[in-house]
Amino acid sequence: MAIPALRLSPPLLVLAEESDASGEDLVTAFAAGFETECALAEPISPDHYEDGWHATATFGALGAAAASASLLNLSAAKTRNALNIAASTPAGLKRNFGSMTKPLHAGLAARSGVTAARLADRGFSADPNALSGDRGFWDLYGPEDRTEFAFDAAEWVLVSRGIHIKYYPCCYFTHTSIAGTQALVDEHDISPSEIESIHLQVAQGAADALHHSDPDTGLEAKFSLEYTVASAAVRDRVGLDAFTKSSIQEDDVQRVRKRVDYDVDDTLHYDSHESVITIETADGTYERTQENPPGTHDNPLTDSQLREKFDECARRAISEPASDELADVLMTLEDQNDVAAAIRNATEP
Amino acid sequence: MAIPALRLSPPLLVLAEESDASGEDLVTAFAAGFETECALAEPISPDHYEDGWHATATFGALGAAAASASLLNLSAAKTRNALNIAASTPAGLKRNFGSMTKPLHAGLAARSGVTAARLADRGFSADPNALSGDRGFWDLYGPEDRTEFAFDAAEWVLVSRGIHIKYYPCCYFTHTSIAGTQALVDEHDISPSEIESIHLQVAQGAADALHHSDPDTGLEAKFSLEYTVASAAVRDRVGLDAFTKSSIQEDDVQRVRKRVDYDVDDTLHYDSHESVITIETADGTYERTQENPPGTHDNPLTDSQLREKFDECARRAISEPASDELADVLMTLEDQNDVAAAIRNATEP
Repeated sequence: MAIPALRLSPPLLVLAEESDASGEDLVTAFAAGFETECALAEPISPDHYEDGWHATATFGALGAAAASASLLNLSAAKTRNALNIAASTPAGLKRNFGSMTKPLHAGLAARSGVTAARLADRGFSADPNALSGDRGFWDLYGPEDRTEFAFDAAEWVLVSRGIHIKYYPCCYFTHTSIAGTQALVDEHDISPSEIESIHLQVAQGAADALHHSDPDTGLEAKFSLEYTVASAAVRDRVGLDAFTKSSIQEDDVQRVRKRVDYDVDDTLHYDSHESVITIETADGTYERTQENPPGTHDNPLTDSQLREKFDECARRAISEPASDELADVLMTLEDQNDVAAAIRNATEP
Repeated sequence: MAIPALRLSPPLLVLAEESDASGEDLVTAFAAGFETECALAEPISPDHYEDGWHATATFGALGAAAASASLLNLSAAKTRNALNIAASTPAGLKRNFGSMTKPLHAGLAARSGVTAARLADRGFSADPNALSGDRGFWDLYGPEDRTEFAFDAAEWVLVSRGIHIKYYPCCYFTHTSIAGTQALVDEHDISPSEIESIHLQVAQGAADALHHSDPDTGLEAKFSLEYTVASAAVRDRVGLDAFTKSSIQEDDVQRVRKRVDYDVDDTLHYDSHESVITIETADGTYERTQENPPGTHDNPLTDSQLREKFDECARRAISEPASDELADVLMTLEDQNDVAAAIRNATEP
């Protein structure tokens, strides 16, 4: 599953503001959205994404509808309507990865979900089987042979499979290659000028998503295996600064980028993140298999890594003291009585 | 093609208001949207609709983007961006026909199109092949074997194929059956109480769209072959009044509705509107084949029929003198210097 937090958090914060919701209400709504989205995605994943749909955009509209329905305290009947209204709104092509339209997808999904829940709240109707019926959502957005919907209410996806937190601000399919490249470079003390070639073996999913081999903009660079790996070989940290126009054009990164290529390993399943990285220098050949990105559920980011990522993002918008205060609020979210007020207090200049 | 006017007119009127556009600007933008929509639909029609997509919603977003781009005077490059942004936004399931979500589709398409054009106007980017590329719009929303895109700029769809104007305020697939039933009833002077059965033979497209045999709400009734044909047998005119809750429940209509059934004629192409109507009474069997609805391009509504339809709609919102004045403005649209001002003047109380 793609990143539920992305399209759940912004609409929920807006709705929380309107309704003076507590941190617990917010966390509950987030969990409802997360579980609903994962459950509704199950029958048609991963083919849905493989076909070319951007799951963030499509399932995102359904998750945002469920989360909004929870925060608005809708009845079961109205929540069902909200989901069936939202079933008419998911859209988003993976083809637009690398353009401004790709991040727009998350916002459109959030908007669709909130709109669906608000319409349902006011008595708006939808076909009761718009998700599951003949020519409904699963039929149109999924493969012909979809799995049966078997939802186990006792098992929480959020708990059992957990959240993977992205450590680098670029496509998740680049993360194993970035981490593996940095590990090889560190271990063997390889300097950028020594690199003769970097060869990667990745899954088809990575090849489909990362179709910008020679990126021109930061958005394209986020979907470039060649550029992100070159960045990883040259820089200590692949952070937000790596995705500016001038960073992309730096000579040493461009020199390495031209020496990166990759093959698809057909034995890997479509959305496997495994990457085999082979670096050649005059002194020898160094290889590493990186199965998982950093920051998975099993192997989470440390608190300081998480905080480093938060600070890097938050301080682009607010001052350092405000971002420190905001971090404290967010780490104690479930104890906040009025979450919007707490955030406002923390971030007010 | 579905009804371009529906999602082109409202956003264009809003943009015209903002930009003091003339009637000629408005008509030009409408034509740009209409032609673009038809051209982009061609490679995947009618399979796209047959599969279960609501064309009003999907192609509508593209048409509204092109029309808005025209009215905003966007460059060719920005117009291309607008269409490729819009390629990530089409959605709308035919499954939701008969619910409030179905008419919502037209509004969502209009919103998507205007948003795409406004974003493009501000320099927003999209993949240059989001419509046509691998896993782009045509790939995801169309059949596997789509036709090649062959656009003949010399031939205008608007002129050569023209606009069909809906005479009845319900699904276009009901129109031949309504008209044919009324013709039989008139010709043979059949009173509702004499009707023992009405049998219809229609195309698969009609059967897919009209899945509410026993409608409960006006919205369901618009997608009910049984109800609309019963209405046609009992009433002089199937107008807006036929789609209120109390009209649906009238005894004589319900009595006939229960006696209407239909078969799919597999020799008709999917979206054929042809209907064979057979009415049985104690006195005999009356049959009629109705190939086309009233109001087609070849056989247009008379000016007075058109005006009757306009009046019926407009007078629900504005007074009779205002709707008369508005009709005059609209009949001379291409001569208006400031179309929004002219409409405002006509409709102000």
